Amino acid sequence: MTDPWQDTSLPTDARVADLVGRMTLAEKVAQLSGIWGVDPDVGDMAPMLREALAAGQRFEDLVRDGLGQLTRPFGTDPVEPADGLRSLAERQRQVVAANRFGIPAQVHEECLTGLAAWQATVFPNPLCWAATFDPDLVERMGARIGTTMRGLGVHQGLAPVLDVVRDLRWGRVEETMGEDPYLVGAIGSAYVRGLESTGVVATLKHFAGYSASRAARNLAPVPLGPRELADVILPPFEMALRAGARSVMNSYTDTDGVPAAADRALLTTLLRDTYGFTGTVVADYFSIAFLESLHHVAEDLDEAARLALEAGIDVELPSTNAYGEPLLAAVGAGLVDEKLVDRALVRVLQQKCELGLLDPGWAPVEAGDGPDGAVDLDPPEARAMALEVARRSVVLLANEGDALPLAPGARLAVVGPRADTPEAMLGCYSFPMHVLVHHPGTEPGLEIRTVREALAETFEVTSALGCPVLGGSDADIAEAAAVATDADVCVVVLGDRAGLFGNGTSGEGCDVADLTLPGRQEELLEALLATGTPVVAVLLVGRPYDLTRQVDRLAALVCGFFPGEEGATAVADVLAGRVAPTGRLPVSFPGPGSTQPSTYLASALGQRSEVSVVDPTPLFPFGHGQSWAAATWDDATVVGGPEWATDGACELVVGLTGDPEQATSEVVQVYLHDRAASVVRPVQQLVAAARVDLAAGERAEVRFALHADLTSFTGRDLVRLVEPGAVELRVGASSGDVRSVVELRLTGSVREVGPDRVLEPTVTVVRG
Amino acid sequence: MTDPWQDTSLPTDARVADLVGRMTLAEKVAQLSGIWGVDPDVGDMAPMLREALAAGQRFEDLVRDGLGQLTRPFGTDPVEPADGLRSLAERQRQVVAANRFGIPAQVHEECLTGLAAWQATVFPNPLCWAATFDPDLVERMGARIGTTMRGLGVHQGLAPVLDVVRDLRWGRVEETMGEDPYLVGAIGSAYVRGLESTGVVATLKHFAGYSASRAARNLAPVPLGPRELADVILPPFEMALRAGARSVMNSYTDTDGVPAAADRALLTTLLRDTYGFTGTVVADYFSIAFLESLHHVAEDLDEAARLALEAGIDVELPSTNAYGEPLLAAVGAGLVDEKLVDRALVRVLQQKCELGLLDPGWAPVEAGDGPDGAVDLDPPEARAMALEVARRSVVLLANEGDALPLAPGARLAVVGPRADTPEAMLGCYSFPMHVLVHHPGTEPGLEIRTVREALAETFEVTSALGCPVLGGSDADIAEAAAVATDADVCVVVLGDRAGLFGNGTSGEGCDVADLTLPGRQEELLEALLATGTPVVAVLLVGRPYDLTRQVDRLAALVCGFFPGEEGATAVADVLAGRVAPTGRLPVSFPGPGSTQPSTYLASALGQRSEVSVVDPTPLFPFGHGQSWAAATWDDATVVGGPEWATDGACELVVGLTGDPEQATSEVVQVYLHDRAASVVRPVQQLVAAARVDLAAGERAEVRFALHADLTSFTGRDLVRLVEPGAVELRVGASSGDVRSVVELRLTGSVREVGPDRVLEPTVTVVRG
Repeated sequence: MTDPWQDTSLPTDARVADLVGRMTLAEKVAQLSGIWGVDPDVGDMAPMLREALAAGQRFEDLVRDGLGQLTRPFGTDPVEPADGLRSLAERQRQVVAANRFGIPAQVHEECLTGLAAWQATVFPNPLCWAATFDPDLVERMGARIGTTMRGLGVHQGLAPVLDVVRDLRWGRVEETMGEDPYLVGAIGSAYVRGLESTGVVATLKHFAGYSASRAARNLAPVPLGPRELADVILPPFEMALRAGARSVMNSYTDTDGVPAAADRALLTTLLRDTYGFTGTVVADYFSIAFLESLHHVAEDLDEAARLALEAGIDVELPSTNAYGEPLLAAVGAGLVDEKLVDRALVRVLQQKCELGLLDPGWAPVEAGDGPDGAVDLDPPEARAMALEVARRSVVLLANEGDALPLAPGARLAVVGPRADTPEAMLGCYSFPMHVLVHHPGTEPGLEIRTVREALAETFEVTSALGCPVLGGSDADIAEAAAVATDADVCVVVLGDRAGLFGNGTSGEGCDVADLTLPGRQEELLEALLATGTPVVAVLLVGRPYDLTRQVDRLAALVCGFFPGEEGATAVADVLAGRVAPTGRLPVSFPGPGSTQPSTYLASALGQRSEVSVVDPTPLFPFGHGQSWAAATWDDATVVGGPEWATDGACELVVGLTGDPEQATSEVVQVYLHDRAASVVRPVQQLVAAARVDLAAGERAEVRFALHADLTSFTGRDLVRLVEPGAVELRVGASSGDVRSVVELRLTGSVREVGPDRVLEPTVTVVRG
Repeated sequence: MTDPWQDTSLPTDARVADLVGRMTLAEKVAQLSGIWGVDPDVGDMAPMLREALAAGQRFEDLVRDGLGQLTRPFGTDPVEPADGLRSLAERQRQVVAANRFGIPAQVHEECLTGLAAWQATVFPNPLCWAATFDPDLVERMGARIGTTMRGLGVHQGLAPVLDVVRDLRWGRVEETMGEDPYLVGAIGSAYVRGLESTGVVATLKHFAGYSASRAARNLAPVPLGPRELADVILPPFEMALRAGARSVMNSYTDTDGVPAAADRALLTTLLRDTYGFTGTVVADYFSIAFLESLHHVAEDLDEAARLALEAGIDVELPSTNAYGEPLLAAVGAGLVDEKLVDRALVRVLQQKCELGLLDPGWAPVEAGDGPDGAVDLDPPEARAMALEVARRSVVLLANEGDALPLAPGARLAVVGPRADTPEAMLGCYSFPMHVLVHHPGTEPGLEIRTVREALAETFEVTSALGCPVLGGSDADIAEAAAVATDADVCVVVLGDRAGLFGNGTSGEGCDVADLTLPGRQEELLEALLATGTPVVAVLLVGRPYDLTRQVDRLAALVCGFFPGEEGATAVADVLAGRVAPTGRLPVSFPGPGSTQPSTYLASALGQRSEVSVVDPTPLFPFGHGQSWAAATWDDATVVGGPEWATDGACELVVGLTGDPEQATSEVVQVYLHDRAASVVRPVQQLVAAARVDLAAGERAEVRFALHADLTSFTGRDLVRLVEPGAVELRVGASSGDVRSVVELRLTGSVREVGPDRVLEPTVTVVRG
């Protein structure tokens, strides 16, 4: 065959155009959605396919017009990786053979904390990535995840989640990188660079506004004005698009009445025309159908298909609800212009072309790279990577009793609902919590230690449950207190069980009404504190909780979020003093009497004020984290004086001197304070951060080149501006621990900045 | 003198133009603000004036350029009304004599629950007005309030509050008319008509968005999109402007970053150009200065003055911060065009002209209309009016034990923090709670009975405190339980203490973190329930609280909100069965585990759904209220069939048959349900309501003429539309008690509607 679309020497555009020109409408539409799962025994995940096959239809006939997408061949059920690989290859061959152009399907998987498949490495949750403040590390992790996926013939990963936390009650806080747009963007971009470096398509989600739903209820309406959208919600997407992400997934929510899945201004005018995005927009699962069934902006699926296609959704996931017969019907009835089908098709085919799926020599991955084609989804290098990220992310919130590191030889009581269960380490998008919970009796397929096990390697340990995550008995609490009484130190591991839609206390759909610890855990904590034994609390949580009533009595408080399969080792390493805690909070912990929604990113009237008795001051602010030792910080200075041109950069310099006795790791955080602006601004907002590791006594100078674009915001007329006037750069170890302030004056005229503006500082660390 | 501006035969415009032409800049600016209080002993309320006078300056010199406004001569301190009247008259004469045009000041007072002055009638709070669902009654009350004010030479009243409740945690919920825009608008308009009928200027506040502040913290930023603003927040203002309100006060808040006080799009483009408003816009107290000190959108007061004047604030209140030297300096420096000063001045003078203040014969009110000029601010007819509104507004939430009416001869224990204190009846804008709290030892100056006193007139009563609103002792709770044990029925009166900025549990600045009853009141309630004596709980509250844990065990539950000086009588009348409860909830009571913000006005995903475990379903829904007996409702019908032209009206008919034995009072509530629309819509929204009183056995037919404009909403392009398609009219006794549904189809083309659209239904009740 010498069809132009198969000629790899031609540019992608030409190849795709040729192919589009040859396709029937049915063949075109078949590229825009797909099938969930590849095997008939996919449980209830893909009932239509299962029914069709059970009714005697042949798979080949079902995909005769082509099959655009294949959803979660590995992530739907616990399949042996080698079996899954063989099965996927066979299905791909069937797809290729059945359609007249021989185009294989594009394969999607979830990969938020690593590929969500049986036996695959579970990395720490995104809150942990953000707590590292270490984009290079996260980039390496992303590449490690991509390598695994690429080795299985998976083309696209449905991560990262770039939603900026606005309300801690939201169930999906655990999936995010916290409450600061710059941090979310910087860490999210690193993940994207890593994943994309392996050829796997990264998918930015959820575009846009999901995290700001009313009262933090999953999928609830989002009351958000255009300025908050532009200044808080969108910047991480802008940063991650520049990092090379090739796909974007819509938010389920409606913002001020317009569902993202039907929002042309968002998905086309902004994303395509303004940002210049050329990849694919994929629907969050079922969200096109939800336009009819949940948002009630469409009378039927035909209209839902039309709205989504017009808005700019190219691919329906996970399977075909609207981009099948309903879309064909709408085109047939003249309700949808076929050109819109072509628009989506071109994007889909261009991506397939880039992925090599249109090349004549394309063949599915047949086997793993182990002996005899074996597949190892949790190889030692991945496990080491998971450990490195976990160690780097543990946050020491308080250590007032200097209880940490634990004294060698200390006799420990290790108690609490999360002390002795592997699931404590895992978020709701890990395969064990997302899928395996529906397969009772199936082994997790991964070695995951518990905190008790990890501590027992070093210490003499006694243990007791205390209480489950939810519920429990007085007797069990009393037993834990008795165990604590007999120990030198009590380590209580509290937290969440991740799960979906009521299967957990954190995770998708598991929103909460308030931020008290789940179940009877606060009671347990009080009972332990009453023993008089020093209590070290370890939080393995999907969100911050209210610790205000106990914090002053704790010997120490450590937060690990969901630290992944090596999380117990990392936590034990920190408690035992083998590893210094280095994590910094990407989300604030709530203060006494504070309310939600609330984040550190607040204007003066959003913070404590004389005009409301409700005080949102956090217990532990954004960016907070302690360690065994600290560097000495010089006052920050600016090279060249206090004038900062509205079209120029200023250079901020911060000197650090390491502790003379031991290594230290600091995160230098730079917050912008704008004295007066034409619109209300946050009191402070992170514009730069640098993780600096110092050997004992080492000296380093951190130089931040900060373009004035980093001070820009959305002005009165919804145009982004840099305004002249007085600003401060507040340099600190957290948003609540400012070490020095540099006063600057932005000079020159008001300047409009476009989507090509500078989004990140340049950071240089000069040692010695 | 024969100056044209004094010629009352000329049109207002001409008179004002002549006057403006003669004034110096200083004279102009002097008209735009004023002085708080008229006497040197105004405490710390007007320190600048007091200091000036103490320093030997003469009042006449201070007002030589004129004095535009006089703030709260009666409402700042407890002054004997007759003394206040004489003092005000004297000050006005000084003002007139001092300025070369002889223009008196325009006098403002707070009047939310009646004139906020010592010894003046305290009417029920606005939540009570709304609970009556009786605009005619509220209009008469407004007229009664205006008559009192007019008699004192007060020209402008700073009420009503038209904020639509969005979050029950807000401290100012008590000042509102609840969570439905139509009800707020209908009741608020009635108040406006009443007040304006006496010549007193009504002031609509707070324009706009105040109630939607983040986490319901007072003055916190408002995350609101333009559609929610247009469809939820603004309609009550549109309705009340049509009712004839001549002044509007800005909201303290910023919406999506733009403070209302600096929002030209809101105060000029929308209010003036679109709505055609010609009255004055007055600043909420200090809000122009707040642009600099709290919002940080101005570098100094000069800039704050410029921003506010440009935006459209004509009058600064309560005294001169920005519209004095700072404004003069800004004009002098060329930063503000003097034409903008003239624009505000014209509006101020036009209103003064309309009020007769520019007429040659103007003279201040010198004395009251009682014998020897006596002033009675709480005359019998006002007290009777207060009682009528209070009686009409008491809501019977539950009566599962048929405990009400109380059996004649029942021995009652009347306990609880609100059982035996007059302040339980009063909201935070009543003079006793707003001002007298700063004057310990001063008598309230009003006879206000307590619930205990009122019940003791009919029943044998024992009593105990139980606990204060906040705090309290185990012993006191035990004592109340003991008293309850010995009684036939326990009436426990729970609730709030109204106050400002931490002086209460409800009121301005007294926002809350959650909706549990304040202090130990829930404990008290549990202790009473444990006695086995039937417990009737009476709530005298500024907001709904969480009663979910007790409601099933209560013999009855009654809510009076803050029912005013005759509230105890009204409550006792209902409990004793002398008056049937007729109130309906203007705000929902929260359900178990529900979260804020939440109101009944939610789209499908804002209500209970499968995708979030947090369920916002209320315990008692909007519109709920029981009575001793009910009418029989016929199914609703529509005259002329199910087609409803997008530019026409439909006529909905509901027949009611009264109880054969006794009088009944029903509120027929009509909710619109739009099956599918181009944007996400509330599942249901009140579009019409009718209070119908029926004699025993009486028959009535309620006919609603509903223009299609009532189905309009703000579409994709932010234009208000009537869209064709299927809708339902759900006719019920509450938003949770739909009695019949009429299915209709809006036919014709999509129609844009302008600001002249129909805002209210026409309701006719045909009896017999």
